[in-house]
Amino acid sequence: MEIILQEKLLQENDHIADENRRYLNAHNTKMVNIISSPGAGKTTFLEALLPVLEERSIHTAVIEGDQQTTRDAERIAATGTHAVQISTGQSCHLNAQSIHTVLQTLPLQNLDLVLIENVGNLVCPAEFDLGETIKIALSSTTEGDDKPAKYPLLFTESPFVILNKTDLLPYVQFDTKKFFADIRILNPEAVFCEISALTHEGIHHCADTLLKRIT
Amino acid sequence: MEIILQEKLLQENDHIADENRRYLNAHNTKMVNIISSPGAGKTTFLEALLPVLEERSIHTAVIEGDQQTTRDAERIAATGTHAVQISTGQSCHLNAQSIHTVLQTLPLQNLDLVLIENVGNLVCPAEFDLGETIKIALSSTTEGDDKPAKYPLLFTESPFVILNKTDLLPYVQFDTKKFFADIRILNPEAVFCEISALTHEGIHHCADTLLKRIT
Repeated sequence: MEIILQEKLLQENDHIADENRRYLNAHNTKMVNIISSPGAGKTTFLEALLPVLEERSIHTAVIEGDQQTTRDAERIAATGTHAVQISTGQSCHLNAQSIHTVLQTLPLQNLDLVLIENVGNLVCPAEFDLGETIKIALSSTTEGDDKPAKYPLLFTESPFVILNKTDLLPYVQFDTKKFFADIRILNPEAVFCEISALTHEGIHHCADTLLKRIT
Repeated sequence: MEIILQEKLLQENDHIADENRRYLNAHNTKMVNIISSPGAGKTTFLEALLPVLEERSIHTAVIEGDQQTTRDAERIAATGTHAVQISTGQSCHLNAQSIHTVLQTLPLQNLDLVLIENVGNLVCPAEFDLGETIKIALSSTTEGDDKPAKYPLLFTESPFVILNKTDLLPYVQFDTKKFFADIRILNPEAVFCEISALTHEGIHHCADTLLKRIT
């Protein structure tokens, strides 16, 4: 009973996600769905990335998914980028319907790229297609190098993986080689980049690699 | 429809959780349910804590919840403590039924304390009572001090909060005062401790505070 309902929910979600994808394609707008643990640095990454995308004349909007508070949306709005907040309440992930509703309000004809910051969670968000061009898995060096093995669905689903908080590598036990090797097993085509969203180290290279991957 | 089913599931879960609680009480065994983000350091905390509990003649067993891999259970077993692994598969949290099944296999007459390491996730595990004596929220300094405001249910539900990775405080932007003040708003009775599970700083004090809180 549970499983059947879950499957039905996922089918309905995937149907709306396909609609979102067609709608974005019709406007030649790309969309990325950024997924990470709580506190891995999604918002700080966006704060560092958005000015670089603006330098490259890429017009963007950000959709912020959070259970509570509008803090992240406020931080994005402070960069000058249009930010829309979706409050998910009890739900541990964004779904395609909520993204569908927001996309109708965005001026897609003027937008090259919509960046979604999903709810901080490695499990549920990986199961729900939002209609994105690609999922981006964002990990941080302080979480440990065992995350690909322990949360394989996210890394299998994400052709682009960002390792954040490289500035803390001297102070933590993290085997970068092992981390990327474990991802390669799950997703041989995955593209990687290493950044410190805080110090902006690697952010220009990461922006260019991302733009190359989605266009 | 969704909401009704969710409520029914939670009701069934709570019913079994109450049974677990009665069963544990009958054996005078306490149980704690440790919840954190992925990579906040739950397993490393247990590796540091278990020898201290043994010094205090507290007999323990550990239940490990993970979607995939038995790595954490193997790490706990290596300490000499009895460890049972629950593979949750697609599910993002442990439920009372799975704990009920494991409790039947444990020699509760010889156990003072069962420690549950839930799936790494700040959202779903907070919603599911397992029959524990208390929930423990474990946060780390590298996740940022905004977690209580962004994931209030966990901190409202947890009368014991551990701040881990204090060894990294010099290298991150984390306002310890603000973090604990935000928790106080949600849960005025909460007890705190600060540790570095890696260096074992604060672990003896934390063990004693925990034992005092649950007995």
